[in-house]
Amino acid sequence: MSLVVVGSVAYDAIETPHGKRDRALGGACTYIALSASYFTKTSIVAVVGDDFAEEDRALLANRSIGLEGLEQARGKTFFWSGVYSEDMNDRKTLRTDLNVFAEFQPKLPPLYVGQPYLFLGNIQPALQRGVREQMNQARFVGGDTMNYWISDYRDELLAAIRNWDFLLINDSEARMLAKENNLGRAAQKILDLGPNTVVIKRGEYGAMLFRRDTLFMVPGYLLEDVFDPTGAGDCFAGGFTGYLAGREFDLRNGHFDVHELHRAVIYGSVMGSFCCEQFGVERFRTLTRKDIDQRFDEFRRFTAF
Amino acid sequence: MSLVVVGSVAYDAIETPHGKRDRALGGACTYIALSASYFTKTSIVAVVGDDFAEEDRALLANRSIGLEGLEQARGKTFFWSGVYSEDMNDRKTLRTDLNVFAEFQPKLPPLYVGQPYLFLGNIQPALQRGVREQMNQARFVGGDTMNYWISDYRDELLAAIRNWDFLLINDSEARMLAKENNLGRAAQKILDLGPNTVVIKRGEYGAMLFRRDTLFMVPGYLLEDVFDPTGAGDCFAGGFTGYLAGREFDLRNGHFDVHELHRAVIYGSVMGSFCCEQFGVERFRTLTRKDIDQRFDEFRRFTAF
Repeated sequence: MSLVVVGSVAYDAIETPHGKRDRALGGACTYIALSASYFTKTSIVAVVGDDFAEEDRALLANRSIGLEGLEQARGKTFFWSGVYSEDMNDRKTLRTDLNVFAEFQPKLPPLYVGQPYLFLGNIQPALQRGVREQMNQARFVGGDTMNYWISDYRDELLAAIRNWDFLLINDSEARMLAKENNLGRAAQKILDLGPNTVVIKRGEYGAMLFRRDTLFMVPGYLLEDVFDPTGAGDCFAGGFTGYLAGREFDLRNGHFDVHELHRAVIYGSVMGSFCCEQFGVERFRTLTRKDIDQRFDEFRRFTAF
Repeated sequence: MSLVVVGSVAYDAIETPHGKRDRALGGACTYIALSASYFTKTSIVAVVGDDFAEEDRALLANRSIGLEGLEQARGKTFFWSGVYSEDMNDRKTLRTDLNVFAEFQPKLPPLYVGQPYLFLGNIQPALQRGVREQMNQARFVGGDTMNYWISDYRDELLAAIRNWDFLLINDSEARMLAKENNLGRAAQKILDLGPNTVVIKRGEYGAMLFRRDTLFMVPGYLLEDVFDPTGAGDCFAGGFTGYLAGREFDLRNGHFDVHELHRAVIYGSVMGSFCCEQFGVERFRTLTRKDIDQRFDEFRRFTAF
């Protein structure tokens, strides 16, 4: 076992121009773990309600995801519903019922505590910090956040990310966190806040990885059809972190290959692109590691000069 | 001599968050030719008024641009003024005075007629077509267009591009021309209209090159500061076409190296990025081929994995 993922497991109602689902397995932790599971042994820390379906638990278990940290609490599972605009570049949240997630206190099973890789999905920054402190031997720790924590829990968030190796964030949130409109300068400011690696996700336009001494950029994969972008950013996170965990990447030894970080960005992009091809987590029912490596090779073909 | 560029030479009044200029040399033909001149011998076909300044003519001549086809007509030079939004992603046209450009009839000097490379800047499609017919021995012909011709002169535009090898177009115009929102499908539809190569420019997000059998994508160069994006798309065109002309690229022989097209996209991106670093064409007063090749190498470093 190697990568621990903390975050939300949810049910989503999603409507896109291609159709709708009334109740589909979702949540950041779900997407991250499913995506990472193609690269490394992955375990989750999350909470669901007593309505959580056996088949959804089975989907995770079938990908060998460790569920010792999946707490089942009294009440309903986190529920989110949203509708996408015609061009898919906007989405409107119709409903957010936190349910059992409102009281989520991540509980690390003893066998998770010594694990080397940790990804802190988008939850309350103080909770992220608490988990990170419990896993103080981890040698590669990163996470995600969102506009709400940046604006309303800024101090807690800054205290949390101070001890992260990497931050994954989208472009508008990077600008908001750094209070700087230029993405390059925003990234440099974020590097002053703790992480030595910042990955900025730009949706269909790809991603960039910033470190003090290096920049890496990749365009987005051009999909025939985007069925449902829900979870694409989380799948990016799972591909990025999962790949590095699978390579036993150690950011702290000072002797790593920076190209591994670049390849991790490509695997992140690959996983984000697959996620969009079907509704919710459906693509993961059939996706194989071979599909993933083929798309990785496509990225190379499409970008080499 | 090898590349002929047809289009507008203008004076622009530009305001961006970084400052303003009341009367700066501009026009698509100007930017394209200045950019292409770093790669190949370039000559222009355009019209200016009797107010055209000697120093502006000298700027072009100093880059060895052939001016035999630069007609001087009675009246004023085309004038455009615009103001950019705070984030530079939008611009508002304040004024467009076509002046002598309203009656522009491209006249090819005899020594241009047999040249092998032709770029048709964004002008009335029937005029583009007329020039292309006069240069029927050219072995690599392409051009640009804009939303106005796509919506109001669609038939003329379709008749013009039918005999082009390549079309350079921005993403929203590609969608409009193809009547298709998905960029990949839009490009395939445009390939049905004549050109065997379509390059879609995406501003700060980079560019994509489509052919029936190949796709190439590059992210945008991350600039410290965008001073003025005016002309960046035209400089892309100049870098793309100029590089290929300089390599004596021959799309019709059936035995070309597709990687040359990819490298041309990179040189286009490089030239577009330099253009934004100063107001108007100012960057071209100091830019060297060495600067260009260094940035080309940076692109390789920033995108290799």
